[in-house]
Amino acid sequence: MVPNELYQYSVLSALMSGAATSGVPLSHILSHGNHGLGTFQRLEGEMIVLDGSAYQMKSDGSVIPNLERDHGDQIIPFAMVTCFQPSVTETIIFDSKQDLADKISALLPRTQNHFLAFRIDGVFEQVGVRTVGGQLSPHESLTDVGKRQATHTFPSIRGSIIGFRSPAYFQGISVAGDHMHLISEDRKFGGHLQACRATEQVTLRAVAIQRLDLQLPKDDDFRDANLGVDDEGIQAVEG
Amino acid sequence: MVPNELYQYSVLSALMSGAATSGVPLSHILSHGNHGLGTFQRLEGEMIVLDGSAYQMKSDGSVIPNLERDHGDQIIPFAMVTCFQPSVTETIIFDSKQDLADKISALLPRTQNHFLAFRIDGVFEQVGVRTVGGQLSPHESLTDVGKRQATHTFPSIRGSIIGFRSPAYFQGISVAGDHMHLISEDRKFGGHLQACRATEQVTLRAVAIQRLDLQLPKDDDFRDANLGVDDEGIQAVEG
Repeated sequence: MVPNELYQYSVLSALMSGAATSGVPLSHILSHGNHGLGTFQRLEGEMIVLDGSAYQMKSDGSVIPNLERDHGDQIIPFAMVTCFQPSVTETIIFDSKQDLADKISALLPRTQNHFLAFRIDGVFEQVGVRTVGGQLSPHESLTDVGKRQATHTFPSIRGSIIGFRSPAYFQGISVAGDHMHLISEDRKFGGHLQACRATEQVTLRAVAIQRLDLQLPKDDDFRDANLGVDDEGIQAVEG
Repeated sequence: MVPNELYQYSVLSALMSGAATSGVPLSHILSHGNHGLGTFQRLEGEMIVLDGSAYQMKSDGSVIPNLERDHGDQIIPFAMVTCFQPSVTETIIFDSKQDLADKISALLPRTQNHFLAFRIDGVFEQVGVRTVGGQLSPHESLTDVGKRQATHTFPSIRGSIIGFRSPAYFQGISVAGDHMHLISEDRKFGGHLQACRATEQVTLRAVAIQRLDLQLPKDDDFRDANLGVDDEGIQAVEG
């Protein structure tokens, strides 16, 4: 694995349109990176990959750990991973997701046309996460699945955030802006990060990425998907 | 080189915004493919790559051949190349660029969400090509450079067309739809293809591409470029 190249399987608009039945085995995804996020077949939960281990965070609040050991054949319809070697490490506090975004931008200036990969470790407060609970039928759109998403809030949680920032011109292929998944240190809670703050110092590590390896699916769902970019829908479900 | 993977350096919106001073050596581009198209530093002409050879088609009508021999260090700010192994070969006639597009679609059905690479060899009629003549100043936009482009028409010309089709959701990163450059068999004329037809059988070879290797520039021009997608501008200058 070459460090700090982004491997992405499929495009976000395909998920938005409900193409989530087919994919590649998790083991294939993990051969391209040790740090990342994604989802599972039929949108059954949120994926986080850190230190080479993958976790499935489900809408019932449970987390299936270390998928790479026994579930490497699990089908993944969308994922972004990299072999993470941060170029900067800083301790920060932040008030909100926007404040966090601003602090990342300050740490890696003039990267608005590049991708960023980052990780934050520490104690987070006023944490809101959501987890999607799966399609009720094939091709159900992510927007509709998202309407039934479970949301959990935690006053305080020690854990890790794994994130990618994609440039604005990538909206639809991935999520323009910051896309973050969180997991607790005990690996028992987590999901797609909707809100959080850090009033005590947390450790932010980040790097800019200039190379993307994008693999498009060949299956019928993807071939027939309407991949028009749905800005509002992406903002609603991934923002 | 793995066959039928698309390597792209930079994004079209960067060219649109005038970021065309920096880039990578031509030899780097050619290490990723034997079939492709692009442009040159300061938008000085149109690039075509076929059978591993690169040509610079200039606005004065001249063509510099076999750049790989003596000009491998020439700076390329944007290019798309692949190691071309067609999956289909057909002889066709066509009335217009749109008719050609329809015939390619019929030959590779259900590929609207994938990339295509293709090549057409034979005698073309009512050919219109344009060549951009270079920036008058750094950062002059492709739209403005395009306003001074040279256009040449040929009643009939034997030659080759090298093309890529990009899916609609890639507009701005590349040219959504078909992007074609043409060169004459004697390698003395060519440019960006604006119009043509074929009333005698020509040979079309094509393949679908599901993997993209996208390299983003790191230079200041790219970092600071406004990469908002300019649909109308792209259509005007690359359509």
